[in-house]
Amino acid sequence: MRATVIRAPHDIRVEEVADAVVREPADAVVRVLRACICGSDLWAYRGESARQPGQRIGHEFLGVVEGTGADVTGFAPGDLVVAPFVWSDGTCEYCAEGLQTSCPRGGFWGSAGSDGGQGEAVRVPFADGTLVKLPADAASDDRLLTGLLALSDVLGTGHHAAVGAGVAPGSTVAVVGDGAVGLCGVLAARRLGADRIIALGRHTARTDIARLFGATDVVAARGEEAVAAVREMTGGHGAQAVIEAVGTEQSMRTAVGIARDGGAIGYVGVPHGSGTGLDLSVMFDRNIALRGGVAPVRAYIPELLPDVLDGTIDPSPVFDLAVPLGGVPGGYKAMDERTALKVLVTP
Amino acid sequence: MRATVIRAPHDIRVEEVADAVVREPADAVVRVLRACICGSDLWAYRGESARQPGQRIGHEFLGVVEGTGADVTGFAPGDLVVAPFVWSDGTCEYCAEGLQTSCPRGGFWGSAGSDGGQGEAVRVPFADGTLVKLPADAASDDRLLTGLLALSDVLGTGHHAAVGAGVAPGSTVAVVGDGAVGLCGVLAARRLGADRIIALGRHTARTDIARLFGATDVVAARGEEAVAAVREMTGGHGAQAVIEAVGTEQSMRTAVGIARDGGAIGYVGVPHGSGTGLDLSVMFDRNIALRGGVAPVRAYIPELLPDVLDGTIDPSPVFDLAVPLGGVPGGYKAMDERTALKVLVTP
Repeated sequence: MRATVIRAPHDIRVEEVADAVVREPADAVVRVLRACICGSDLWAYRGESARQPGQRIGHEFLGVVEGTGADVTGFAPGDLVVAPFVWSDGTCEYCAEGLQTSCPRGGFWGSAGSDGGQGEAVRVPFADGTLVKLPADAASDDRLLTGLLALSDVLGTGHHAAVGAGVAPGSTVAVVGDGAVGLCGVLAARRLGADRIIALGRHTARTDIARLFGATDVVAARGEEAVAAVREMTGGHGAQAVIEAVGTEQSMRTAVGIARDGGAIGYVGVPHGSGTGLDLSVMFDRNIALRGGVAPVRAYIPELLPDVLDGTIDPSPVFDLAVPLGGVPGGYKAMDERTALKVLVTP
Repeated sequence: MRATVIRAPHDIRVEEVADAVVREPADAVVRVLRACICGSDLWAYRGESARQPGQRIGHEFLGVVEGTGADVTGFAPGDLVVAPFVWSDGTCEYCAEGLQTSCPRGGFWGSAGSDGGQGEAVRVPFADGTLVKLPADAASDDRLLTGLLALSDVLGTGHHAAVGAGVAPGSTVAVVGDGAVGLCGVLAARRLGADRIIALGRHTARTDIARLFGATDVVAARGEEAVAAVREMTGGHGAQAVIEAVGTEQSMRTAVGIARDGGAIGYVGVPHGSGTGLDLSVMFDRNIALRGGVAPVRAYIPELLPDVLDGTIDPSPVFDLAVPLGGVPGGYKAMDERTALKVLVTP
């Protein structure tokens, strides 16, 4: 089969690899219908996250079950399924409490020795604990299928940020980051009843999606200027709930700066760089909480899926470029150069 | 009147100062019956927090109302009252939501131009928003009066840490810091229904109080060794709720190290030093939250007071040395040298 591998920074290739097969009794093999490229894949692409040469890449996909191991009870060939960006056994105490990202037997697609999502098929360990079934008729609805793919990561991650930030009916929310996760944070905040959603972003194409997703205000500034703007919009107080969806020192500094006293920052941007951007003295004096991390999207899919299916929320606009599998290297380039927001892959 | 002033690092004196008088219509003057020295006063004593020479010091006191301004409606001369460690107007939106530490008209006792708690009397701004009345007969119960003094700071601060850490019935809690606040964190965690409370501390006199307050386990180690011990005690997982009551880089690092995935650190140790001690990548991967800061103890007094009055909780054992006002300089020395845990002052 063909799958995407990363040979070195900026060297993404689609190569012939060993077919995905059932190896363990709990495995399933999923033929990929939709995959995509994540902002966090760019850290590997840019060499900021280490990868072994030849490692697979891509952690978001949905598709059709092609085969199952003897122990798999919840799925059968032909089932349409979505995979969260980590697999998990579904039986440990962390899985039971909805923190599947801490499952001791869990792992990330594309980690050494595993298949990645940007390929023709994926071997799925612990299929019963990992996959979520989708209605079969969704396969014939192109736009819906694209929206459902967002359950694999960005929608659940945006939701995790909103939950971490404590978004509740009536909240004032500010969102740092105009990437797909930040935009899904806007969507999630609106879904949770936020009254006012201030999106920080300077790219009109992206802030237009933010408005479509429910942003009531857009701040086209960065750093101190953005902090001043958000403070002015909120009577000097800042936003009670802040979504941090970038992961840099600068973005975290902005998040702290725009948070209201007693508020919370829900952070889901993968931290990179040497500093945290956190001024603990400021956070201490103002009782600003920090909650978030790698999103246990498996836990959120059952809650979010019905709303995607019935059209209450439609995250599909975050995908603004579609490529066949062979187009994946160009997709990375487009996202790296910010000419594409999020690239859909249709193997 | 006589009051404690700080002239320079390590130079604490009790001097004759201007009498506390009602200046504004919302003021009250409180004659101090009990005050004490706080671990955070030591940062000024050690020169780690800047103070102007001659600034007053001390932010914990209870006493008897001596006079009130024309606008004070809730208190009259003769009332026994306790003061939280910040004053607050009681009318702003932050006060209304229980975050009195963010009151724009609030301030700290001992800040430049204000009276400190370690003196014969204190001018209390916004008396109606700040003070809490105590039953008159408590004045004749020495031990109870000492316990009630803890409402001024340490008990409410320990409670804030426990709330920040998400302590709930059945929780496993670990407490970093065996000072008065850490010990009150133990007491607060037990009061909130924690099942298991692991106190980290190497001073038997202090860990004995921790056990008295409800600690089920004591870890007499620091750093990596303490982390390993707590992990071993918790099946490798760590504690779901961690109370950080020190405020150093090292203590925060320990707090992160002993936190269970998906857990929270309730931090109330005033941050000092240049680093945060936070490894954001670890916190991100493990979904560890950080919640806390300067405790809005005014908000907690109504909840905690009945339990102190009826003896359900008795924080008085944290005071292990009592001095008259003239003994305050020696009290600082004793706390600085860790020969005293917390010094009670009876002016």
